[in-house]
Amino acid sequence: MENIIIKPIGTIKSPFKSFQDIPIQGKFKEKVEAYLELKEEYIPGLKDLDKFSHAFLLYYFHKSDRVTIEGTSYLENVSHGIFAIRSPHRPNHIGLSIVKIKKIMGNKLFFTGVDMLDGTPLLDIKPYVGYFDSKEHVVSGWLEKHFKSGEMPDKLTINSKDVKDYKNKG
Amino acid sequence: MENIIIKPIGTIKSPFKSFQDIPIQGKFKEKVEAYLELKEEYIPGLKDLDKFSHAFLLYYFHKSDRVTIEGTSYLENVSHGIFAIRSPHRPNHIGLSIVKIKKIMGNKLFFTGVDMLDGTPLLDIKPYVGYFDSKEHVVSGWLEKHFKSGEMPDKLTINSKDVKDYKNKG
Repeated sequence: MENIIIKPIGTIKSPFKSFQDIPIQGKFKEKVEAYLELKEEYIPGLKDLDKFSHAFLLYYFHKSDRVTIEGTSYLENVSHGIFAIRSPHRPNHIGLSIVKIKKIMGNKLFFTGVDMLDGTPLLDIKPYVGYFDSKEHVVSGWLEKHFKSGEMPDKLTINSKDVKDYKNKG
Repeated sequence: MENIIIKPIGTIKSPFKSFQDIPIQGKFKEKVEAYLELKEEYIPGLKDLDKFSHAFLLYYFHKSDRVTIEGTSYLENVSHGIFAIRSPHRPNHIGLSIVKIKKIMGNKLFFTGVDMLDGTPLLDIKPYVGYFDSKEHVVSGWLEKHFKSGEMPDKLTINSKDVKDYKNKG
């Protein structure tokens, strides 16, 4: 199997209009609210999702124009394999965030835990199931040292150097 | 943005050769081991992933030939919206599993927590980060009642009725 064609099922409407504002993970600005707007034909697919506290959103990193197989994370200036970081510059450019569901109204799902740019194409929504998805005895590789104290790391948002990097690197 | 073209980055080699054997979630047969085989060009992308205990795998439900916007889960015979279940018959047919990394050797990553069919095309690998991805105060909607006792539900694998359903429904 080679090429697979996928189509956005909707769009994410986020207060983050530029890269500078985006937290590295939604948890770092956890009160910020956004919503997703589903295409009308998918509204019945939301049935019973409002009984879940959290959902996975899969989306397309539409502003990434390259793939970097080894790259640096926004959290530190050390090179890691692309599969050991959550950078947008990955093969297939698919993003994943776990968000907190606030309410669902018609074709709109309001959520917190926002780390997507406004206008991001949405690819899927899946229910987050504590029993399957909250793992125990987790070891988080190079990220462990940034959260050792149980507190937020110093660097919470993508800074302008990274933005330049995001846009200009070939 | 309409059509997006994605390409598999590798293939999942699983002991589950037919639908009947697959657990509804990997957790239900958690000792079973599988591996993924990456295309050679992506090997540098694995750098440092071996220091993580868990990873998200995104893959393509290549045997699903339909989209069911409202459908029944394998766990119960009640209709839910497709975004409230983890069924393969979803828009874009993208699957998500959180697996436990056992070892990485060359272009192979061995893991447990297997719920994919042999030959499944792999789309992405992301590190699972306890600090971002293990959520607290999770409510899991219609699934809660199946795990109330803290034990496994009665029905752990996809049975033959479901397989017929999987293959024949229009």
